[in-house]
Amino acid sequence: MIGPVLPSTGALRPLGVDQVRLTGGFWGDRQERNARATIPHARHWLEETGWLGNFHLAATDDLAPHRRRGREFSDSEVYKLAEAMAWEIARGGDAPLDELSTVVAAAQEPGGYLNTMFGRPGQQPRYSDLTWGHELYCYGHLVQAGVARLRGGVRDALTNAAIRAADHVCVEFGPTGRQTLCGHPEIEMALVELYRATGTARYLDQARLFLDRRGQATLPDIELGRAYFQDDVPIRERTAFDGHAVRALYLACGAVDVAVETGDDKLLAAVARQWERTVATRTYLTGGMGSRHEGEAFGDDFELPADRAYVETCAAVASVMLSWRLLLATGEARFADLAERTLYNVVAASTSLDGRAFFYTNPLRQRGAGAVLDRSRPWPRASSSERAPWRDVSCCPTNVARTLASLGGYVATVDDGGLQLHQYASGTVTSGGTALTVTTGYPWGGSVRIRVDRTGDAPWRLSLRVPAWAGEAVLSTPEGARRVQPGYAVVSRAWRAGDQVRLRLPVAPRWTEPNPRIDAVRGCVAVERGPLVYCAESVDHDPALALDAVDVDRSAPLTERPLPALGRDVVALDLAASTTTAAGGGWPYGSIGTADQEPGNLTLVPYHLWANRGPATMRVWLPVADPHATGR
Amino acid sequence: MIGPVLPSTGALRPLGVDQVRLTGGFWGDRQERNARATIPHARHWLEETGWLGNFHLAATDDLAPHRRRGREFSDSEVYKLAEAMAWEIARGGDAPLDELSTVVAAAQEPGGYLNTMFGRPGQQPRYSDLTWGHELYCYGHLVQAGVARLRGGVRDALTNAAIRAADHVCVEFGPTGRQTLCGHPEIEMALVELYRATGTARYLDQARLFLDRRGQATLPDIELGRAYFQDDVPIRERTAFDGHAVRALYLACGAVDVAVETGDDKLLAAVARQWERTVATRTYLTGGMGSRHEGEAFGDDFELPADRAYVETCAAVASVMLSWRLLLATGEARFADLAERTLYNVVAASTSLDGRAFFYTNPLRQRGAGAVLDRSRPWPRASSSERAPWRDVSCCPTNVARTLASLGGYVATVDDGGLQLHQYASGTVTSGGTALTVTTGYPWGGSVRIRVDRTGDAPWRLSLRVPAWAGEAVLSTPEGARRVQPGYAVVSRAWRAGDQVRLRLPVAPRWTEPNPRIDAVRGCVAVERGPLVYCAESVDHDPALALDAVDVDRSAPLTERPLPALGRDVVALDLAASTTTAAGGGWPYGSIGTADQEPGNLTLVPYHLWANRGPATMRVWLPVADPHATGR
Repeated sequence: MIGPVLPSTGALRPLGVDQVRLTGGFWGDRQERNARATIPHARHWLEETGWLGNFHLAATDDLAPHRRRGREFSDSEVYKLAEAMAWEIARGGDAPLDELSTVVAAAQEPGGYLNTMFGRPGQQPRYSDLTWGHELYCYGHLVQAGVARLRGGVRDALTNAAIRAADHVCVEFGPTGRQTLCGHPEIEMALVELYRATGTARYLDQARLFLDRRGQATLPDIELGRAYFQDDVPIRERTAFDGHAVRALYLACGAVDVAVETGDDKLLAAVARQWERTVATRTYLTGGMGSRHEGEAFGDDFELPADRAYVETCAAVASVMLSWRLLLATGEARFADLAERTLYNVVAASTSLDGRAFFYTNPLRQRGAGAVLDRSRPWPRASSSERAPWRDVSCCPTNVARTLASLGGYVATVDDGGLQLHQYASGTVTSGGTALTVTTGYPWGGSVRIRVDRTGDAPWRLSLRVPAWAGEAVLSTPEGARRVQPGYAVVSRAWRAGDQVRLRLPVAPRWTEPNPRIDAVRGCVAVERGPLVYCAESVDHDPALALDAVDVDRSAPLTERPLPALGRDVVALDLAASTTTAAGGGWPYGSIGTADQEPGNLTLVPYHLWANRGPATMRVWLPVADPHATGR
Repeated sequence: MIGPVLPSTGALRPLGVDQVRLTGGFWGDRQERNARATIPHARHWLEETGWLGNFHLAATDDLAPHRRRGREFSDSEVYKLAEAMAWEIARGGDAPLDELSTVVAAAQEPGGYLNTMFGRPGQQPRYSDLTWGHELYCYGHLVQAGVARLRGGVRDALTNAAIRAADHVCVEFGPTGRQTLCGHPEIEMALVELYRATGTARYLDQARLFLDRRGQATLPDIELGRAYFQDDVPIRERTAFDGHAVRALYLACGAVDVAVETGDDKLLAAVARQWERTVATRTYLTGGMGSRHEGEAFGDDFELPADRAYVETCAAVASVMLSWRLLLATGEARFADLAERTLYNVVAASTSLDGRAFFYTNPLRQRGAGAVLDRSRPWPRASSSERAPWRDVSCCPTNVARTLASLGGYVATVDDGGLQLHQYASGTVTSGGTALTVTTGYPWGGSVRIRVDRTGDAPWRLSLRVPAWAGEAVLSTPEGARRVQPGYAVVSRAWRAGDQVRLRLPVAPRWTEPNPRIDAVRGCVAVERGPLVYCAESVDHDPALALDAVDVDRSAPLTERPLPALGRDVVALDLAASTTTAAGGGWPYGSIGTADQEPGNLTLVPYHLWANRGPATMRVWLPVADPHATGR
């Protein structure tokens, strides 16, 4: 099993990138693009920005503070790219990881300390700013890269550096060491995974120690409050995810890992409960998490503005990581449901069609079309109306790269009774004596064919996830066809090579209403098709049809048509709509007068493909005509 | 004329705090509370925080960097308090200003430089961080305090310090000086007012120079973008107010002042156009401005979330300052309309009933009740669910203090034909040989009586503003009663002492709808009564009536009743309402099922009085039952 998460116990056991190979289709194509375009692109920018150069300078004792480039966490980008390369190699691809490994390892100091920002003459001392310095966060990513390499069966300069850093942390921050923690969780899950990969128990102990320390008001009361780094309340006592979304979700990943490895069912249940509340009240239709620009944070329950949705790409990656852990621990389909939604509508949305530009924030509405971005330099801000080639804070591209490179590891599992498919993508799945071929045009088409290529004689269960959005699906097996409900459709039989199963998911477009407590989208509807959220983008419309003023009629039919400009198989939707203009105008409150209604045609495209055709306004949620009971 | 703004030309000439005296009533009581409670409270906190002590240390050359307390702009709080005291003295009150003046003047350096943050051994050099250092911003407040004192007829240490600082700025930043500007506009309007108060033309020239320099990308491209400090586009070319709201509005004040004094009608028209667009698309029902926490900034058009409304108190003060300037320049009632709305619903809301605690942000919805605030120490954040006694960034209390102390100066004007009343408050108005007494219970009652106490023989026009919200009013004069429309109701006659006029404004509660482009409150209504916006506060309700899930029926009657717990004359409103709970719950999107409807009673209180009875949730905008045309 070569994959990012390998628990020693749990309801399901993951299959790795060596066992699940994606061949073409939605995710296979993206994985190839990741290898061909995104990984080299990130490598280029690490050079260009000097973030890799910092390691060279550190290795040659030439890293005076004024020579160091990038923010305090820039080392982590090198590690995340190394991790992406490690998965790429493990899944059978090629990537220049050895060079990165050598550069990183050369910068490590005696005793294992490794950070280009701290500790050298003229720099701030080691661990003098744990609140903002990200030293342990960076180790976390180094260790995850090291684990990816170890899982791939390699021990090299990178794995040695990772283990030395982890050993250093266990000494420096252990039971008799510094009784404090990092402002950015991340090392917790990395240490647990290193424990799983090496069997060294002190890594697990240290992860649990960090977890238990958090929530005790050890870090300072910053302007954003201690909730920003989850140091306000212990994770066991929380009711939902709060504060900085990536921090909260990385911490929750670490908590699940610790809970699983230590048999701490209460901790596992606490995180599952927080996940449940967060999904019910703090999650966007796209699966995106983090409502606030201020503090890149979760908001209050039902605080889900479309236009100011922060929905950081990294928070989506973190959410997929968390859902996967909870799925492995519990076997419950809802975790795979959210992962699917998040992968198709945030992770896939984050990257441009050419694989060389990225969103950091993923709002559900873009009010202003913005300007064409200069692709030759990093964009200084998190928000942009087009994807940026790189940013001054560029955490997302490498995070997406490592996710796509390891995506095969998030598709299928086994248990003692059989094999489970959680995500649908064309490819092959092997586990022991069993081999399957999956063929599907999903998500454009709803048909998924599974052929058994190889199997033992003993009967086993094939479980296929039926997403909650599907309502119902049809499963055809050698015994015949039947209707199946959301959850796992199970085929339990003695298989023979050549047997086929077909799942038909209903991907016809559908209207989606929001819970009326979500103020931001009251009186609106959205359109979904299969796992995909759709949106209206101004580039498809006459400027006269102002998206700002559009109204839709839910009884209007949704007509499918191909949109090859956005890719093979892409389905766009057309529907009748109108634009409403309020009378008056000087003051936007009062008795809003009779409105003009201009009929027109509205085109919807998959949200994950928006902003690939130049600057545009965009909206996912569409007002329903005459939402007021006010006589308008 | 002793008032904050005295243009040399324009449609209307202001009457000062010496000419308009408020006696009791809504604003008179608040002005007294300001003198009795708020000003001494602010004086106490300036001592407690060390922000005043910084001046002592500077005067005795003892201000090593580690001894200085407070943020880079803390000097300005001392100046704003000095300005408040100057107005308080000018209106006939008493305040310990001489001590502040002496302390401030003693810290000024040879050549006129004055700032406790920069330029001393160990501190950063003078003007080394104009982007964030606030040195010119602080001078602006010093100069405004000096002008208040000059207008009161006093030349003292404070006025000398202000003039020396202004002279220093004209040399340092003049045509042959540093070709740059301050990250926070403010000095522009201060210099124009000093020109008006002294006749020294170079202050006006310097203000125009600063104005023309801004928008040329002189300041760096910070993460928030140059729009944050309006250095992205020249003010003449803007279409609406953008970026940091207080910065944008202070700059616009300076632009109006320069336009008026230089006869630059195009500049005046540009600012008026920006005001118009901002009021139509970027202003809350309360008159509050600034939609975003991130960057304390204006949002896009129609981006007006209720819960995350930033609506900084200082932006409301700045908006009133701007509206007053535009009113004086043009004579148009719409500017006084917005000032009224903003004074009653943001400025009045900012301060607690005891005058010793303050809101910095003024959202239109509070989702969580929060905790009781510790009144013994400054609150570290801008947001709080209760008013805070002081903050680490405490710009708002002193800004409100100077506004309330000078409020008489925002009530009435004259022109060659007569006298105009723009705001209604019990008190006396004198101008030359004319004296009026105004008696009103406004805003609780809609009747305003004006008695002519003294007058010359020549006929003159009395103009009374009829607010736009009134729709229509009734004006009774010695000639009889007539209906009058929004704008100015004019009575032109030969007056005699003893003549009376009565304006009856319809203050019955009314339903208010939002423009449907405002996503955040689609499907909702608000209730207003006269100039007051109302809200529902959880402390008036059984916890079972979740404000989060409340629905109202616009056909339900609104019943008035007194609410003495919030003050004499305060009117609360009762109405029937219900709570709706969506079925299901795990995922808040889809076919949202049938809902439970629990009938109940909803109480509404004036928004400006909320959060005076302990932690509460609150909402201004109330969902209309069954807003969907979706078969729910």
